[in-house]
Amino acid sequence: MTTRLGPDTRQTYKHYTDISTRWMDNDCYGHVNNVIYYSWFDTAVNGMLLAQKIAGAASPEAIALVVKTGCEYFESVSFPQPVEIGLRVIKLGSSSATYELGVFTPDQPLCHARGTFVHVYVDPATRRPIQIPQRHREVLNQYLTLE
Amino acid sequence: MTTRLGPDTRQTYKHYTDISTRWMDNDCYGHVNNVIYYSWFDTAVNGMLLAQKIAGAASPEAIALVVKTGCEYFESVSFPQPVEIGLRVIKLGSSSATYELGVFTPDQPLCHARGTFVHVYVDPATRRPIQIPQRHREVLNQYLTLE
Amino acid sequence: MTTRLGPDTRQTYKHYTDISTRWMDNDCYGHVNNVIYYSWFDTAVNGMLLAQKIAGAASPEAIALVVKTGCEYFESVSFPQPVEIGLRVIKLGSSSATYELGVFTPDQPLCHARGTFVHVYVDPATRRPIQIPQRHREVLNQYLTLE
Amino acid sequence: MTTRLGPDTRQTYKHYTDISTRWMDNDCYGHVNNVIYYSWFDTAVNGMLLAQKIAGAASPEAIALVVKTGCEYFESVSFPQPVEIGLRVIKLGSSSATYELGVFTPDQPLCHARGTFVHVYVDPATRRPIQIPQRHREVLNQYLTLE
Repeated sequence: MTTRLGPDTRQTYKHYTDISTRWMDNDCYGHVNNVIYYSWFDTAVNGMLLAQKIAGAASPEAIALVVKTGCEYFESVSFPQPVEIGLRVIKLGSSSATYELGVFTPDQPLCHARGTFVHVYVDPATRRPIQIPQRHREVLNQYLTLE
Repeated sequence: MTTRLGPDTRQTYKHYTDISTRWMDNDCYGHVNNVIYYSWFDTAVNGMLLAQKIAGAASPEAIALVVKTGCEYFESVSFPQPVEIGLRVIKLGSSSATYELGVFTPDQPLCHARGTFVHVYVDPATRRPIQIPQRHREVLNQYLTLE
Repeated sequence: MTTRLGPDTRQTYKHYTDISTRWMDNDCYGHVNNVIYYSWFDTAVNGMLLAQKIAGAASPEAIALVVKTGCEYFESVSFPQPVEIGLRVIKLGSSSATYELGVFTPDQPLCHARGTFVHVYVDPATRRPIQIPQRHREVLNQYLTLE
Repeated sequence: MTTRLGPDTRQTYKHYTDISTRWMDNDCYGHVNNVIYYSWFDTAVNGMLLAQKIAGAASPEAIALVVKTGCEYFESVSFPQPVEIGLRVIKLGSSSATYELGVFTPDQPLCHARGTFVHVYVDPATRRPIQIPQRHREVLNQYLTLE
């Protein structure tokens, strides 16, 4: 994985989640506040995991804890623009999964921002890292991109 | 206007705004927190006003200040359910407009919650109440329901 | 209980919770957005209940569901001003408790906003209303104001 | 600047901002959601800049845009715990300032999380990067740590 300095194109992501912006997402400059992007990343990742039935009550064998997140902002977004959050897995370790998320708006080919999001899988009782369970790994592999 | 005690049906609202829920909207009980509903009301009202070009920079002649809001909660909503926010104007005074907002989810005939939202129109400079400007009133009349 | 039209003084509240504002609480007009006030009310009520050990895991016998909230806004608040949220119980029914919350800022005698917040106590299993358990009622009585 | 893998101690930060947590900060696992930490970082940085009179209306000569943020989470925080956000500047470039923020709770010597936050200074009119104005640089230098 190399450090990507500029925005990405849509086809480099494997899955998209449509999210509406909200009036209060805008800050005093009229742009969506930097914090809000993370609520979109959180929603894209957890929404996919829930739809794939490997999160919450559907995953008694493992909890995915967020250990690291990040975002580079290339160009602002403003309410009422909706966003489309691209998702890809860029690294699957023994017990961790690293996602990248691209923030797109309609008709724009390049992302406005790119986030990273790292889950570590832990035992629900001991909270110690465990190997990613096989059925989780099979799902996550579907979103894996090789560079 | 009578006090409505139960949930409303879809046809009693004049306009709908689709809003996606976000993972962090859910509270520790797994339901959308009571606070979040107000971000939807805010989004529905301001989104309509922006689309009608009577808000923000498009409205130099008047600012609409929020002076009162409220919500009755009938049945919980949970991420990842999207919501559809029904909007109607139930009262147009000399300088104030009162909205009602209904929170609906797909395929459900009755609303999960009903909000109220009162705007008072003020002069941008003096912040004193003014008569609702005519072009604003014409727009708001389109959403007015008579009971 | 009469309808109070104007702001209240500090001594009419029984308990105070200090809350810091956050930069993103401010909206595009530079004032705290109307939605955020409800996160303060939520925090004041739940914080008191947790401190009194009648919420969450400390209350297996009853869940308090939010069925109604509201707020009147008298004067804006802006980050970085901290707020002090006054709390009082104005009505204790058989199965419901009605709170009023006053939003104060340092050195100001009158509240900037006044909220209402209604809890209905339900059985954790059936989600049907139940009588407020006695130990909850004893706590809530400490915050009750008689008018 | 080396990559720090573990939590930091309090004395490695130059300035602290006290922030109260809110009930809705907790997610469905009963811990503060990963997104909320960024609202604290945003508040700590902007609060300092406002107090130093180099932000908002007090800074007509330059706008500081957020171009990159990040966070490593070491140990969870839960409402009603308050947090203390440590702030330090770790890099002052020609037109950019890089902050690190440590999330501490009372009586704990090590931070629960560490964030990064990068501002680029731009011309308010053209939005092109400019040299950090001298009076801004003098303030930021007070928070600079040398490793």
